[in-house]
Parts: sequence; C-alpha cells; structure tokens
Amino acid sequence: MTNRALAHSEALRLLGGVSLGRIAFTIDALPTIRPTNHIVDDGVVIVRGHRGVDLELKAAADKVVAYSADVIDPCTYVGWCVTLTGIALLIDHPSDRADLPTVVRPWGTHEQSYVIRIEPEVVTGFELLERPGELSAKAR
Amino acid sequence: MTNRALAHSEALRLLGGVSLGRIAFTIDALPTIRPTNHIVDDGVVIVRGHRGVDLELKAAADKVVAYSADVIDPCTYVGWCVTLTGIALLIDHPSDRADLPTVVRPWGTHEQSYVIRIEPEVVTGFELLERPGELSAKAR
Repeated sequence: MTNRALAHSEALRLLGGVSLGRIAFTIDALPTIRPTNHIVDDGVVIVRGHRGVDLELKAAADKVVAYSADVIDPCTYVGWCVTLTGIALLIDHPSDRADLPTVVRPWGTHEQSYVIRIEPEVVTGFELLERPGELSAKAR
Repeated sequence: MTNRALAHSEALRLLGGVSLGRIAFTIDALPTIRPTNHIVDDGVVIVRGHRGVDLELKAAADKVVAYSADVIDPCTYVGWCVTLTGIALLIDHPSDRADLPTVVRPWGTHEQSYVIRIEPEVVTGFELLERPGELSAKAR
C-alpha cells in the first residue's frame, strides 16, 4: 500500500463531497474528537453541531482546531483522508447565518445547533492506494 | 434525534468492535487528525500507524492525545461515537511488541509501523438515536 499526497484543491474537493467529518479541539485543555457535519463553501469549511455535541462545540470557538474527513475501506484501508487546521469562528448571530448554505442541515430535529466556520490554514490530504498484487480494489 | 450517553464499559466494547479510528494529536503545536487502526486489549487501546502516518504518529509519543471511532449513518446520523483521551506511549522496543495481539495488523505491506498504547483517562461515548416519527431506522 502506498500513499499519494493530495493537492490543496483536490483535498478540499474530496472533503466537500462528503458530509460527515470529525473535529478535534480541546475541552478543559484536553484534546477530544467529535463527529459533525460540514460543507465546503468557497474554500471555507462550515461545520454544524448537533444535540449533545453542540455545547461542547462552543468551547472550540476562537481556538485552533483540526477537522478531518475520510473514506477508507475498513478491510483494505484503501481510500482517502483529508485533514485541515485552522481557527474555528463561531457564527452565532442570526444575520451572520442568513447567508449560510442551507445544505449544512442540523442533525435530526435540533434546530438550535452552533455553526462554526474554519478557514483552512494547513491542509493535508492523502490517498491510500493498493500496491499491485494486493487484494484490494481501488476505492474510487 | 436524541443522544444516549454510553457507560465506560459499553463505550470500550463498541470501540473494540471496529478497527478503524482517528487519532488527534499535535504536530508542531498544531492539532491534527489521522486515521489509524486499533484494538482494545483489556481496557487499553493499541493503535498502529501506516505508511505516511507513521512518522507523524511518532510525534504523538508521550503526549496527551484523543482517539475516536464511530459508526454513523451519513444520511440519518444515527449511530454511535466513542472518544477517549489519554497519554500515547510509543511501543518501539521489539521485546515490548512481542506480546501485542497480532490482530493489530499493519496497513498494507508496511511492517515497520509504529505502535502506540493509550490508557484511556477520559472516555466519552454516546449513541445517536432517532426520535419517533423520524425517517431513520435505528442503526444496530
């Protein structure tokens, strides 16, 4: 199995093609990870929380966070992974949210979720490829 | 959609039932996330890297990291998520690795991957459930 590094634009395109990701941030100075959903809008990642994660997400505001999404076959480990790092800005004023793409839909029926915006400063992406002779099929 | 908190033992049981997870750690003081595979062995999480992630994983040694796995339906967001926080100890001496369960298999053909051991100090788990009347079916 080999890795192929992804270009910035390719990485963001893949990230934007899925809706489920994970945000890493700190709660009481300890790192943690929570699942969220997201879209990529003009190079900016917009993340919405959900019931349970929501109040915790507020702790990420104005902090440097990591956000990641991947599609990896759990048996062959073929697929891709994109991770970015940037400052999480909380979008908490209704007027700031009016222009948000509606596709960042809240999870379930919980409408009051927090929305954060991350301008990627570091983007790392790689594609996990099989080697000739390995059993896996390329996951594309 | 509602959340149900998972007990420590239930959370570790779910974590041990999947092999793909994500580790959050810092590289050059910036948070990042990488996919890895893992097992849960007697309450301890053993994580193995893979080509590309491997050298980066070494940076996690002796640091406080977060490790997370989830099974979440990307359409209904029904499923579960488990995250733990603990110190990552690098297992780099062959004699320390002799007793490792062989099921922490390396990704692909890369045999020299780093292995780290995390004793969970904080474990957070929740199950995402649908509400009556929601379209989703419970993912169990």
